[in-house]
Amino acid sequence: MKFRRSERIIDMTHYLLEHPHQLVSLTLFAERFGSAKSSISEDLAIIKETFEKRGIGTLQTVPGAAGGVKFYARVDKKTAKNFIAELCRQIENPGRLLPGGYLYIMDLLGNPSTINKIGKLLASAYADKKIDAVMTVAAKGIPIAHAIAAHLNVPVVVVRRDSKVTEGSTVSINYVSGSTKRIQAMVLSKRSLKEGSKVLLVDDFMKGGGTINGMISLLAEFNASVAGIAVLVEAEYPDCLIDDYISLVKLQNVNEKDAAISVVEGNYFIKNNEFLQGESE
Amino acid sequence: MKFRRSERIIDMTHYLLEHPHQLVSLTLFAERFGSAKSSISEDLAIIKETFEKRGIGTLQTVPGAAGGVKFYARVDKKTAKNFIAELCRQIENPGRLLPGGYLYIMDLLGNPSTINKIGKLLASAYADKKIDAVMTVAAKGIPIAHAIAAHLNVPVVVVRRDSKVTEGSTVSINYVSGSTKRIQAMVLSKRSLKEGSKVLLVDDFMKGGGTINGMISLLAEFNASVAGIAVLVEAEYPDCLIDDYISLVKLQNVNEKDAAISVVEGNYFIKNNEFLQGESE
Repeated sequence: MKFRRSERIIDMTHYLLEHPHQLVSLTLFAERFGSAKSSISEDLAIIKETFEKRGIGTLQTVPGAAGGVKFYARVDKKTAKNFIAELCRQIENPGRLLPGGYLYIMDLLGNPSTINKIGKLLASAYADKKIDAVMTVAAKGIPIAHAIAAHLNVPVVVVRRDSKVTEGSTVSINYVSGSTKRIQAMVLSKRSLKEGSKVLLVDDFMKGGGTINGMISLLAEFNASVAGIAVLVEAEYPDCLIDDYISLVKLQNVNEKDAAISVVEGNYFIKNNEFLQGESE
Repeated sequence: MKFRRSERIIDMTHYLLEHPHQLVSLTLFAERFGSAKSSISEDLAIIKETFEKRGIGTLQTVPGAAGGVKFYARVDKKTAKNFIAELCRQIENPGRLLPGGYLYIMDLLGNPSTINKIGKLLASAYADKKIDAVMTVAAKGIPIAHAIAAHLNVPVVVVRRDSKVTEGSTVSINYVSGSTKRIQAMVLSKRSLKEGSKVLLVDDFMKGGGTINGMISLLAEFNASVAGIAVLVEAEYPDCLIDDYISLVKLQNVNEKDAAISVVEGNYFIKNNEFLQGESE
């Protein structure tokens, strides 16, 4: 009997982690194990307590006949602080400097563990918002968008710079880059976004805000609306077109001559409701 | 005490699922919970048994002072068969047909749950191979590559059609598309791949094999070698340049006039060692 409980809670833990933001009925678990719902409820109470104690996330209980539990991934403040500090440390490595003051961050975007943590942090900031899709621009934003979407259990929509035959009919807009003032195009497959969707816009880097602004214009073509804006790195820029967003890291200054990069924590802890609601450190 | 074991196994289950293909020492868990290593060993035996019984994966025990456990995600044959059948059913929907006989699959590539399952299936086929990185071509291959890489705990390397300023110095090659015979370019950032790496090549679609062949040429420039080739969909093509690969789905025929798409299971169960080694259905 003791082993049976162990087996149930291991399997349920795995199941819940694989199905974030989804209502899982007690019946599903009860049938899966041939157990009474009361035993399942006890198991879930243990899982919930452990998830919360260990900073894994939380289980929300939805009562009633159509009820069940929903798992939300969470990151505790200390873990989040440490992770962002580590990101800053990695990003300010002068070895990342490219000609023109650009930074090489493809290694961070290609590291599955880093990307998963970035996704979890950004997703948890939007856990209580109604979000139908995550939108990004190809190609660097894609892993971040997927990592967020996996935790929110919503689809990813990818905007491109040019249309491809495998996308079918597309909607195209022109926009002006915020920092370089160049006119650029953005294309989205018509089938990829439902009319009226509430969309979380995601990118790896934001300076003048032109790319995000382009995505906002594109949303208008689909009668869709902005549910939030999340970027990995924001660069200090006086006339940024975007003011309501969440960033993990802020690039303050890049001095090509001295090969010095100055990076600080972004506005994550200022903008993220969860940490605003008085959680103690 | 009973609760302590529950708490430990929930936390350890979460930790192992988040750290696939990584050696986790018993000491780490022993210190995490202030428990004796013998208790941790017992917990791990329960987790291993449950993971295997429930088709979640397996724990490999590495003995000795520097030892510990490694988690490998697995998919049991029945789940794999059902998932691939469901993929085929979805792909043969005539609504996917685009002019020119192309298929729209962006929705599948944008669905985090589908992508996670695709990644787990393909990663488990390469679980016992030495792989240093997963390589793909922007943009459609990226989510599949990341999903595989997450399970194998290796970085993702993204090849582009054109070079970008944020990639630094690049190596470029020209290659001939297998099916359209056009000459195209492929570019990889010099910093993104270590010399001598063993690389798993991934793409969403393969017809003539030109793109995969281009990646192979690019690997040669880095003195890197092919550790495997995995594609989501292969299309029937008489002179495909590639013969040793794994596919989940095979596109047999697309008839634009009758809006008919014929799709069958790919060679996954023929090529995948795990299922060759006599696992009963």
